[in-house]
Amino acid sequence: MIIYDNVEIGDDCIIGDYVIIGETSNQQSSSSPVTKIGYSCIIRSHSLLYAGCQLGNFVHLGNRATIREFSIVGNHCSIGMSAELQGNCTIGDYSRLQSFVSVGQQTKIGRFVFVYPYAVFTNDPLPPSSQLEGVEIGDFTQVSAGVILLAGANIGKFSLISVNSKVGGMFEDDSFIEGNPGRRIGKLSKMPFFNKDGKRHYPWPYQYATNMPWQGLDFDDWAINENIPLF
Amino acid sequence: MIIYDNVEIGDDCIIGDYVIIGETSNQQSSSSPVTKIGYSCIIRSHSLLYAGCQLGNFVHLGNRATIREFSIVGNHCSIGMSAELQGNCTIGDYSRLQSFVSVGQQTKIGRFVFVYPYAVFTNDPLPPSSQLEGVEIGDFTQVSAGVILLAGANIGKFSLISVNSKVGGMFEDDSFIEGNPGRRIGKLSKMPFFNKDGKRHYPWPYQYATNMPWQGLDFDDWAINENIPLF
Amino acid sequence: MIIYDNVEIGDDCIIGDYVIIGETSNQQSSSSPVTKIGYSCIIRSHSLLYAGCQLGNFVHLGNRATIREFSIVGNHCSIGMSAELQGNCTIGDYSRLQSFVSVGQQTKIGRFVFVYPYAVFTNDPLPPSSQLEGVEIGDFTQVSAGVILLAGANIGKFSLISVNSKVGGMFEDDSFIEGNPGRRIGKLSKMPFFNKDGKRHYPWPYQYATNMPWQGLDFDDWAINENIPLF
Repeated sequence: MIIYDNVEIGDDCIIGDYVIIGETSNQQSSSSPVTKIGYSCIIRSHSLLYAGCQLGNFVHLGNRATIREFSIVGNHCSIGMSAELQGNCTIGDYSRLQSFVSVGQQTKIGRFVFVYPYAVFTNDPLPPSSQLEGVEIGDFTQVSAGVILLAGANIGKFSLISVNSKVGGMFEDDSFIEGNPGRRIGKLSKMPFFNKDGKRHYPWPYQYATNMPWQGLDFDDWAINENIPLF
Repeated sequence: MIIYDNVEIGDDCIIGDYVIIGETSNQQSSSSPVTKIGYSCIIRSHSLLYAGCQLGNFVHLGNRATIREFSIVGNHCSIGMSAELQGNCTIGDYSRLQSFVSVGQQTKIGRFVFVYPYAVFTNDPLPPSSQLEGVEIGDFTQVSAGVILLAGANIGKFSLISVNSKVGGMFEDDSFIEGNPGRRIGKLSKMPFFNKDGKRHYPWPYQYATNMPWQGLDFDDWAINENIPLF
Repeated sequence: MIIYDNVEIGDDCIIGDYVIIGETSNQQSSSSPVTKIGYSCIIRSHSLLYAGCQLGNFVHLGNRATIREFSIVGNHCSIGMSAELQGNCTIGDYSRLQSFVSVGQQTKIGRFVFVYPYAVFTNDPLPPSSQLEGVEIGDFTQVSAGVILLAGANIGKFSLISVNSKVGGMFEDDSFIEGNPGRRIGKLSKMPFFNKDGKRHYPWPYQYATNMPWQGLDFDDWAINENIPLF
C-alpha cells in the first residue's frame, strides 16, 4: 500500500494490498489537503482515496473503490467494488453503494440510501457544458440497478426507483418511480410489493434492519427518538 | 503479486502483476479456506481471487477480474476485464463472461453461456431485504450487453436475451427475449437472424465453434455423444 | 509501476503507482511490439497499457484505465476512470471518454467526440460469431451515459445520442438520436435544447470551448481555418 503525506487514519482500520491513500488530482502540486479516515474502517485491496476526501467511522470500501477529492462519506457507509465517487460529493450515514456505482461530482446522497449496481449519477444537463448540477437523493430512498439519474434530479425520501429507469426532475417523498423517462407511478407505500410473509415491503425500515441503527428496536420508537417523520 | 496461505495453483499457470490470490472476506480471521486454481490458467494483472474460490483448468481471467469466496468457475471459462463474480456462484465449463459483467451471489450459470459487457445479475427481489434469489441461466444461452436480470430469473437453454433488456421470471428453452420488461418474442431457432452466408445463426453452435469442444467436428455428432438434445 | 521492454515514453509524463506499461496479450511471447506514449501525458495510478498501443501528446488516462494492443489514442484525449479500450481501436484528437466506457475492438471514434459513463461499443452482430464490425463515430458527436452502440453502427458528425439509447445502423450528420431502438428524432441543431442564457446549445462548439483548440477564438474562424464545415 502507498500512503501519501497529510493522511490521518483512525484506530482499528484494516487497509488492503495495493491501496493508495492521498493521491493528488494534480500530481505536480507540492502540498496536498488533509485526507481523513475515521476509526474501524475497512479499505479493501486496490482501492484509491484522493487527497482531501473524508471517510467517517465504520466505513467499508470494496475492492477498487475510488473516492475523489473533497468527497465526504458518513459513518457506517459501504462503498461497493469498483464504485466511483467523483469530487465534492456527500453521502450520509448508513448509506450503501453497491458495485460499479458511478457518482458524478457534487452529488448529495442522504442517509440510509441504498444504490444498486451500475446506477449512474450524472451532472451535466447539456453535454458538454460547464453547468454542473449534482443529483440529490433523500433519506431512505432505494436506487435500483442500472438507473441513470440525469443532472439536477432531486428525489425525495422513502422512494424507490425501479431497475434501468432514466430519471430527471423533482420527485416528492414516498414515490415509486419507473420508466424511460422515469415517471411517478404512485405512492411507494401503497404499491403492491409484498414479501414472503404477505406484508407490504415499503416503507422498508419496518422489514429490514440488518446493521441499521434500529436493529433490535421498534422502528417507530427509534424514528420518533430521531425526529424522523413516520408513515 | 501477493499469494496468501492455503492456495493451490496447478501447473503451467501465468499470473500477472499486482494480482492477489487468497484475500479473506473477513481480514481478521486467522485461517482461510482453500483456494484452488487448476492447470494452464492465465490470471491477468490486477485481478483478485478471494479465499475459498475455485477455478478449473484452462481458465482465463481478464485484468482486474474479481472472483469472490466459494464461487466455482468451470474448465475453459473466460472471465472478462473488471468482471465481478460475487460469492457462492457457479459457472459451467466453456462459459465466457465479457468485460464489466456483474454477477450477484448465488447465481448459477450453465455451460457454453456467453455474457456480454455490463450485463448484471441481481439477487434481491425487494431491495433491501434478506431474501437472496440467485439467477439461473441454462446451457448455450446468450446474455447480451447491458441486460439486467432480476432476482430469481430462470432462463432456459439455447436462448438469447437482447441488448439492454430487463428480465425477470421463468423462460423456456429456445426463447428469444427482448424488452423492458423482457418478453418472449418467440422461438429463437425460428427468428430471422441470418448470417452473411444467409444461414440461420441460431442455434449458434452450428455456426460458431472457436475454442469450443466441437471445433473441427460436426456439432450433431458431438452433441449426440454428449447427450445434449438437438434441434 | 512496471514498465516492460520496448516502451517509449515522451518528456514530461507523470506515471502513477501500480501502473503497468507494455503488458503482452500473449504473456509467453518473447518479443513485444513497440508501445509509444507521447509527451506531457498523465497516466494515473492502477492503469494498464498493453504492448503495441500508442498514446499521443497531452493524453490523460484516468485511474484503472486500460488501453489494449494496437489501439491508437490521439493528442489531447482523456480516457476516464476504469474505461476500457480493446484492441485495434482509434480515437481522434481532443476526444474524451468518461468513466467505465467500454470500447470494443475495431471501434473508430473521431475528433472532439465526448463519451459519457457506461456507454458501450459492441462489435459482434450475431453473438457469438466471428464477424467483427466496429462502430464508427463522427467528429464532434456526443454519446450520452448508458448508450449501447450495436455492432457496425455508424453515427455522423455533430450528433447527440440520448441517455440509455440502444443504437444500430447508419445516421447522418446533425442527428438527435433517442430511444430503444434509437431513432433519429430530427436535426440536432433544430432541437429545443437551450442553455441558461436562452441560447441553443447545439452545435455545441459555439457554447463550449474548455481546453478545445478554439478556446479564446471565434469557432467559425477556427473552423474555416481547419476546413470544418459550418452550421
